[in-house]
Amino acid sequence: MIHVQVVHRVGLFRSALVALLRCEETLHVSASLKRPAHQEALCSSPHVWVTDIDCLDDPARTGMPGPGNGQGGMGALLVLTSERKPGALMRAFEAGALGYVNRDGDPSRLIEAIHRVARGERYVDDSLACDFLQATKLPLTPRELSVLALAAEGSPIGDIAASLHLSSGTIRNYLASAIRKVGARNRMDAVRISQDAGWL
Amino acid sequence: MIHVQVVHRVGLFRSALVALLRCEETLHVSASLKRPAHQEALCSSPHVWVTDIDCLDDPARTGMPGPGNGQGGMGALLVLTSERKPGALMRAFEAGALGYVNRDGDPSRLIEAIHRVARGERYVDDSLACDFLQATKLPLTPRELSVLALAAEGSPIGDIAASLHLSSGTIRNYLASAIRKVGARNRMDAVRISQDAGWL
Repeated sequence: MIHVQVVHRVGLFRSALVALLRCEETLHVSASLKRPAHQEALCSSPHVWVTDIDCLDDPARTGMPGPGNGQGGMGALLVLTSERKPGALMRAFEAGALGYVNRDGDPSRLIEAIHRVARGERYVDDSLACDFLQATKLPLTPRELSVLALAAEGSPIGDIAASLHLSSGTIRNYLASAIRKVGARNRMDAVRISQDAGWL
Repeated sequence: MIHVQVVHRVGLFRSALVALLRCEETLHVSASLKRPAHQEALCSSPHVWVTDIDCLDDPARTGMPGPGNGQGGMGALLVLTSERKPGALMRAFEAGALGYVNRDGDPSRLIEAIHRVARGERYVDDSLACDFLQATKLPLTPRELSVLALAAEGSPIGDIAASLHLSSGTIRNYLASAIRKVGARNRMDAVRISQDAGWL
């Protein structure tokens, strides 16, 4: 019997995924809004956490499995994701995910993946392999990324400069460099491209 | 027995919603990637279509229920949505949706809503009432909206002007007016605000 904990911030999708997995007699399924903090988790740790890649918290903040210990005492992490989101995939990898299942696949693949990661094996949907190759190729520096993220929120150059303690000219340089590196036509285009890839 | 057809473009969520609804004995549940075109639908029309607001097609293109006929011979349309998406809500209303269920609600509300719209009654989650009030208040003209949508895709001013057969100055005026009307600080901010509200 594998204890599976479904984590999704959208109530109906959470309930629906639980209903789907409960059809499988080898699984004991429960659900929560988010992954609990370290101590809580230890009390009733499931074998496998199933979560959507959009619902992944910052691993540093939650104290959940980090790189290399995805199959540790805290249970294995399995993420549901879409194709062409290499940035999001990399964040999941950094959060220590052991399983990567395509949201568009058949439920039988999710079931198979759960059994695999519960045994400590890595599982990556074939359809996501190309994204893994691209995931290592983040073209932006952390600084360019944070400047672009602030711009994406609608912050004016002056505000971004003030919040990062840099000059407006430097901020413009970072943005120009980000636009060039992602092959965008302008700032808006750079934000769109980076959001589509899951970098932002 | 109510025949329910689940429509969702993401395979696993579609399967999961079906599994959730099949727990309910009064429902006969099937699923599809999208709502079929007019003629097909007539052959095996379900009583209730359950779909995510993000998966709504343009009603004009699909020939599905339009305003005022959400409970016609084509079956009633029920949409799952989130709070603070008044723009998306309005599109669902224009597509003739009869039921509006909060994605973050309990599954029992979805079941109740299905029964209600199957009887031809309107169902709106209490939590969405405020959004309905705001949904009628789209601050932008269709022209401002289409200019903003092209800008959001990263198109430069010159390209937008060429594609709409207008001058660059006119495009800048439309963008300035859109920025002012949605209370944004700049173009990026106007895009973000409009996307958050579901207008774009």
